[in-house]
Amino acid sequence: MASHFADRLCDAVKTKKTSLIVGLDPVYTRLPSAIRSHRQMNDEFDAAAAVDAIFDFCTQAMRIVAPMVPAVKINIAFFEKYLWEGLETYYSLISEADELGLEIIGDVKRGDIGHTAAAYAAAHLENPELAGLEDNLAPDAITVNGYTGADGIEPFADMADKQGKGIFVLVRTSNPSAAEIQDFTDADGQAMYEKLADVVAQIANKDERIGNYGYSNVGMVVGGTAPRVTTALRQKYDKVWFLVPGYGSQGAEAADCVRFCKPDGTGALINASRSIIYAYEKPKYKGQFGDDWKRCIEQAVIDAKVDLANAMQTLI
Amino acid sequence: MASHFADRLCDAVKTKKTSLIVGLDPVYTRLPSAIRSHRQMNDEFDAAAAVDAIFDFCTQAMRIVAPMVPAVKINIAFFEKYLWEGLETYYSLISEADELGLEIIGDVKRGDIGHTAAAYAAAHLENPELAGLEDNLAPDAITVNGYTGADGIEPFADMADKQGKGIFVLVRTSNPSAAEIQDFTDADGQAMYEKLADVVAQIANKDERIGNYGYSNVGMVVGGTAPRVTTALRQKYDKVWFLVPGYGSQGAEAADCVRFCKPDGTGALINASRSIIYAYEKPKYKGQFGDDWKRCIEQAVIDAKVDLANAMQTLI
Repeated sequence: MASHFADRLCDAVKTKKTSLIVGLDPVYTRLPSAIRSHRQMNDEFDAAAAVDAIFDFCTQAMRIVAPMVPAVKINIAFFEKYLWEGLETYYSLISEADELGLEIIGDVKRGDIGHTAAAYAAAHLENPELAGLEDNLAPDAITVNGYTGADGIEPFADMADKQGKGIFVLVRTSNPSAAEIQDFTDADGQAMYEKLADVVAQIANKDERIGNYGYSNVGMVVGGTAPRVTTALRQKYDKVWFLVPGYGSQGAEAADCVRFCKPDGTGALINASRSIIYAYEKPKYKGQFGDDWKRCIEQAVIDAKVDLANAMQTLI
Repeated sequence: MASHFADRLCDAVKTKKTSLIVGLDPVYTRLPSAIRSHRQMNDEFDAAAAVDAIFDFCTQAMRIVAPMVPAVKINIAFFEKYLWEGLETYYSLISEADELGLEIIGDVKRGDIGHTAAAYAAAHLENPELAGLEDNLAPDAITVNGYTGADGIEPFADMADKQGKGIFVLVRTSNPSAAEIQDFTDADGQAMYEKLADVVAQIANKDERIGNYGYSNVGMVVGGTAPRVTTALRQKYDKVWFLVPGYGSQGAEAADCVRFCKPDGTGALINASRSIIYAYEKPKYKGQFGDDWKRCIEQAVIDAKVDLANAMQTLI
């Protein structure tokens, strides 16, 4: 396996023939009833039973998607609700994903300054060497909030370098009120997110961060729901991987998302979370596969891959 | 005890007669040798022993400072390094701090959009009702990263309202490269951080968020090392509590920090972390108290309180 994170991404995208990745945002009350009912638990307020169900669901979902997609994105927020029991489950899932050969993005959105940024980087990117925890892995990459500027981002990039891992820095998010802050524009017409993208690119484009395929291990998170910004960013930052949320439930179209890809299909990871993992809630799949929630998830991945592949054809 | 977070802060600041709060950023290798040597542990790479030592140190430090300061700020980054064992220790410390009558700020810098922001808010502000975790408390307030704009901040504010708690949104940080992003200025001369402060103030100033003393439960984090911005922010946002990092080790002077306080001493929490909890490393205190690390911490708190009180006198 390639020791450079961006090289591993290229290999994985080429092998799986898609830029689609699956996001795990598990919410207990939305899990399939088969998962919730077959175990001895009081109710959703039983923490140990809830995290057990979440682990079971996520593991099974990952086994379904692993042959079809290059990576999973695990959203730590949905584990932190269960305090340390949730965090233990998060790390257990990372080990499961690793065994399945998936690249793993820890969607942790950490960000701070100085020694605190370094502590977060150690916590979330360094494989633990601590006795008692040494069997655990940190994810292959994490998401980082870069509002504090370059010296808040660099400790994460440095740790990623040391560990053969990567980071994706939030540049332009896909929520309605993002514009007010991130599109804030200076006298020369440069938007805030463009300024931040420049700061990230300066860190990303350092020679020692560029892998064999020409990509950096430092990437950017840019929402798929802002298509007008996409082409410009793709052209301007040709060494950067984009992590693109918003495809599926958040309303970004395939045609918008694939603009982040280069013609060979590399350069972007297009994330779908709820539209995949809760596919069994949709009449479209429920009607076809009944209570077979695994088959629903499988078909949702197939459909999303076809949707993105078709959009790529149109683009090229 | 007041049910509104901002009222509790006012009461605590008046009772303890200071705006100084103590930040806990525990790093195992810097703990007093007495703490590290009196237990059976292999070395710093033994996770269970390390978190045990950190818990012991932080608990003792909090007992020393509790009679003297209104609040502690616990930096979760230094616990996340120890994965779920660290997180369990973080929550144990919150319970200890609560028993000591301290207001507790969880310095977690969380931020995201939509349902993920809501999940983080539930994780870090809602007292757990889950069987197995129900004896744990969430902190009285947390720090929030607001780069995603209003709809990323509101889920945190809403949860704080429900729980009688508070949030502090990062507005202007104290690191060298913050200026590049946060002082990014539009054609009218408004800086990015001023725009974000306006967004936060719109959330903070809602009538239902204002307590009996006229303060909101939604505050701002503004570094004490940027004194030129301080007076303007204090005057413009009179209902907002400021959380001010940077006093002590990060180089902000008392005279700069106290500008965030109103004449009665309320309105700002001025945080010192390493300059207090590692006071026993300083020749000044070591010379006076030898290996009595607790006495060093106590004296450092007293000195910082006097320093801030003198600065307040000069200001008024």
